[in-house]
Amino acid sequence: MTATIGDPAPDQGQDQGRDETVCVPLAGPALPLDEARRRAELLKVVADPVRLQLLSLILGAPGQESCVCDMTAQVDVSQPTVSHHLKQLVEAGLLERERRGSWAWFHLRPERLEEIRAALP
Amino acid sequence: MTATIGDPAPDQGQDQGRDETVCVPLAGPALPLDEARRRAELLKVVADPVRLQLLSLILGAPGQESCVCDMTAQVDVSQPTVSHHLKQLVEAGLLERERRGSWAWFHLRPERLEEIRAALP
Repeated sequence: MTATIGDPAPDQGQDQGRDETVCVPLAGPALPLDEARRRAELLKVVADPVRLQLLSLILGAPGQESCVCDMTAQVDVSQPTVSHHLKQLVEAGLLERERRGSWAWFHLRPERLEEIRAALP
Repeated sequence: MTATIGDPAPDQGQDQGRDETVCVPLAGPALPLDEARRRAELLKVVADPVRLQLLSLILGAPGQESCVCDMTAQVDVSQPTVSHHLKQLVEAGLLERERRGSWAWFHLRPERLEEIRAALP
């Protein structure tokens, strides 16, 4: 039998003999772009050294909650910088903020951390 | 018994009655800064929509490997952009690159993905 134009090439295995002029997708479809963007935004929240330090403090504290004053004492950045990062963690839904007397307290929302874990490939 | 200076305050629970003028750290120490930076760099690698899409293609492909031509066909960015992101994934140790004929193939290093998983709080 003679191959005619349009016949598939004989299967030679994908590691060798692949037709280098034609590329037939073997994989796919990709993660939809909207979902990829959503996951990337979640992962960006924890892709910061100061936010990782603040989360480590809260995760290690009794009841998984900590006061902004406690945290400022433990990291090598200013209190406004700590507050800035805590605000980002609250906006991302990872922490909840509560006023107690003069101080702001923050507690972890572990279900949100699980969502971030699920956003990894 | 009369409290003297230096006596610890009676335990009133951490949710109420906390001395608002003095802040004694309850948590800590924080994750060391060097380690926090290392983890943040790992997480930044996957905190990008296109890189998440490329990883989804490779994870879903036979043998967890894919050709750059396959991947370009499946995402909505140009081939140079795909190559740029693949290079970043290689530099981060998440992918290994191999030349086969005219095409570059990429396969996953799952142990590196596990390191990224462990970098999460």
